[in-house]
Amino acid sequence: VIPEVIRKLIKILMKFPSIGPRQATRLAFHLVHQEKSQLENFEQTLKELQKMRICPNCFFPYQGNYRLCPICRDNSRDKHVITIVEKETDLISIEKTKTYKGNYLILGGLAKREMLEPAQKQRLNALERRIKYELGGKVKEIVIALNPNTYGDFTFLLIKKQFENLADKITRLGRGIPTGGEIEFADKQTLIEAFKRRS
Amino acid sequence: VIPEVIRKLIKILMKFPSIGPRQATRLAFHLVHQEKSQLENFEQTLKELQKMRICPNCFFPYQGNYRLCPICRDNSRDKHVITIVEKETDLISIEKTKTYKGNYLILGGLAKREMLEPAQKQRLNALERRIKYELGGKVKEIVIALNPNTYGDFTFLLIKKQFENLADKITRLGRGIPTGGEIEFADKQTLIEAFKRRS
Repeated sequence: VIPEVIRKLIKILMKFPSIGPRQATRLAFHLVHQEKSQLENFEQTLKELQKMRICPNCFFPYQGNYRLCPICRDNSRDKHVITIVEKETDLISIEKTKTYKGNYLILGGLAKREMLEPAQKQRLNALERRIKYELGGKVKEIVIALNPNTYGDFTFLLIKKQFENLADKITRLGRGIPTGGEIEFADKQTLIEAFKRRS
Repeated sequence: VIPEVIRKLIKILMKFPSIGPRQATRLAFHLVHQEKSQLENFEQTLKELQKMRICPNCFFPYQGNYRLCPICRDNSRDKHVITIVEKETDLISIEKTKTYKGNYLILGGLAKREMLEPAQKQRLNALERRIKYELGGKVKEIVIALNPNTYGDFTFLLIKKQFENLADKITRLGRGIPTGGEIEFADKQTLIEAFKRRS
């Protein structure tokens, strides 16, 4: 009974992260009831999306006819401090703090099954080349801002190994009780880390 | 830091049912990394979607140059048995059983805050007119297949009141222990209904 166009749309939506067949079906039927102007706006936005570029330095998407993204173009930022994040939204969260003034590398994923995916390796190799040939062979600091879980920990070790001679120091974000969090509900590992890092 | 096009896309995606700002952001960045051909396919599907029609009888979307949807066009189906469902996906679930051979009305929502929304009232009025002027003033049965919760129960009462003289009987789907379900985990109300309807 599902019309062909809706079936096609469901197939597209199901490929999106964390959208299963049920939500895809609900979304498709939601879309069919949208005003023509809304759907045209959506279409237009998908068209514009195709014109976006991915920054060859940090891999963040950007608009406009430049070689680099606005962050990498910004000369007031310290190019010798580079924070490695898993995904674009992590970068956005860090930027919102308005306190970090270095550059980034978006990894696009974490190491699973004991090794990095080719896409992530490629990005790390691009950073390696940039440090070697554009940044004088060594940067001041690489901050590895990956989520504190098994995959993040393992990826940290792989990155540390690759870059140990290419940065004065390689750091990770602090671990501990989150601001506003409660000691009572903190898990054991968080408490252990919070104790270790007491100051 | 979020590029304008992505901001626009997030705004569109956030209007979708059960998609919050976080998931919308993740989806937008997922889309920006898609192949051009994938995005074009998505665009094309949205364009085709605009050509779909909504059936004036049951309000299910359909393709093609017909006055009614395939279900309402099907003369082997009993037009004098009409099942009222909340949404398209409920209709699809019922169709999958391959045992129901009547027609439908998709309500598009339930009564909240003690009354029906104008859109739902309109659909019920369309059904009322259809029964009065096309189906001889009275149908054999109206099955109200709304989810068994407070809103569904209340909507049932409103529909029953509007149609009591327009159908020989107005029924609801049976309530009880779902097939494969466990009595131990059934909630109290389900057990009460299952006892009441024992046979």
